[in-house]
Amino acid sequence: MADFSIGVDLGGTNLRIAAVDQSGTLLEKIPLSTQVSRGRDYVMDEMCDAIRSLAARLQPSGKLLGIGVGVPGMVDQRTGYLRGCPNLPGWSDTPVRAEIERRLGTRVVFENDANAAAVGEMWLGAAREVRDLAIFTLGTGVGGGLIIDGKIHHGVIGMAGEFGHIMIDPEGFPCTCGTRGCLEQYASATAITYMAKTSRDPELAAVVKSDPNVSAKCIYELAMRGNPGAREIFDLVGQSVGRAIAMVVNALNLPMIVIGGGVANGWEAFAPALFTELHKRSLVYMAT
Amino acid sequence: MADFSIGVDLGGTNLRIAAVDQSGTLLEKIPLSTQVSRGRDYVMDEMCDAIRSLAARLQPSGKLLGIGVGVPGMVDQRTGYLRGCPNLPGWSDTPVRAEIERRLGTRVVFENDANAAAVGEMWLGAAREVRDLAIFTLGTGVGGGLIIDGKIHHGVIGMAGEFGHIMIDPEGFPCTCGTRGCLEQYASATAITYMAKTSRDPELAAVVKSDPNVSAKCIYELAMRGNPGAREIFDLVGQSVGRAIAMVVNALNLPMIVIGGGVANGWEAFAPALFTELHKRSLVYMAT
Repeated sequence: MADFSIGVDLGGTNLRIAAVDQSGTLLEKIPLSTQVSRGRDYVMDEMCDAIRSLAARLQPSGKLLGIGVGVPGMVDQRTGYLRGCPNLPGWSDTPVRAEIERRLGTRVVFENDANAAAVGEMWLGAAREVRDLAIFTLGTGVGGGLIIDGKIHHGVIGMAGEFGHIMIDPEGFPCTCGTRGCLEQYASATAITYMAKTSRDPELAAVVKSDPNVSAKCIYELAMRGNPGAREIFDLVGQSVGRAIAMVVNALNLPMIVIGGGVANGWEAFAPALFTELHKRSLVYMAT
Repeated sequence: MADFSIGVDLGGTNLRIAAVDQSGTLLEKIPLSTQVSRGRDYVMDEMCDAIRSLAARLQPSGKLLGIGVGVPGMVDQRTGYLRGCPNLPGWSDTPVRAEIERRLGTRVVFENDANAAAVGEMWLGAAREVRDLAIFTLGTGVGGGLIIDGKIHHGVIGMAGEFGHIMIDPEGFPCTCGTRGCLEQYASATAITYMAKTSRDPELAAVVKSDPNVSAKCIYELAMRGNPGAREIFDLVGQSVGRAIAMVVNALNLPMIVIGGGVANGWEAFAPALFTELHKRSLVYMAT
């Protein structure tokens, strides 16, 4: 007998559905792709079908305690509408929570994915010892989540933690949000490949030319092999993340900052520049 | 019969001591100057003498409920040490709270002055309707305070809310903290007069030349009379404050931001640029 909960990571590429027991042990997972091009209703139907079949398989041996869905966008917690979600085109400004609840016939927790990640880190991850933390998720985009006094800090309508739009350089790269110099344009996988495509380093240019779909991971490997163009990119990633963390530390003096997302796998390439900038920019870090 | 508390605003210029009753009504105030040049012990003796005499005068008609002291510096709440307090030279890294408590023979609340201002705004001021707010105090320097869920957000050691060191421009004006481009170098009274002294505007240059101690207020008046050099300065003040608020709003999605301190009296001169920048930079502001 294991009562269980179902969590969904609804991203622009992957749709991952998993059941865990009350200790957080994974019982079963269903890794799907998000068929973004087939539209919102198709994706929601597919997701809800998978949730229902997973629940049906596990219910003989336990009770379904709750369902949570994380998305890479701003969630208006008052209304359950999704706002500003560039990786799920056509989903913004629609009542996603209500649509999921209608399909499943039950209430769901509908959250920004970085907030959900922050809760996970506090429950079972790097932040088990603390009650306050910020998480930066460096993936296709850059997300953020904030836990204060053991709870997600939602802010007035649920949109706190938008660290991807911390200004790194007022005249910097243009951002999808309409302004310039946001962290997301410096520290996401998208930004890393974009910077590689405009690099003047001959070796890097040749790699990019031979594979127009070059991955951030490939550029990381070049950096670790000492390619100057790739190293420059990861120095900029580190400087930018350090600058953003400095601001969060100056404003919030948190005991822990967690860096997650796929780009975090490139830690070794960007950590030195991160710490240099963090030391330089954070008064509070310097004082402690 | 009116039980009372005593609050102290211990700044680099003014030393203000006041007693209030439980409804916040002012019973009596003692406005002193901070004799910074006479040293820490002299100032603390003078402050504690004034607190004692004020308490003695009021005690026949009520009980002293508590004493709070606000300072324009970072307070380590674990130890009561003052850290990084440029306007009280010689006070940094000393056990100020313990020294005050020893003199008075009782416990005191020792706080960053902007945190204290934030509590005041929530109790009796602009923020009575909310449980979450940030305050920016634009004075000789720039301070900040943060209330989350009705309580001061101290962070791990009491140094949260250092909004004066939010980065406005990575290659901007050098800051006393050792880095560049901090808000304090753009939006404090000190910064305003500094910018006036380096202005190329002929009228402004003449004013500064005729009065080397020209005040930020005088430059504000010039701006309101349409002087282009002074207007440019206040546009930069507004842009910088707007940029900092955008970051705080993106990170925290707060229902209220309070702007205080002497420079706030120049609101009319810098508010338009502030809102232009805030609209441009704050994703969350745009979405709400």
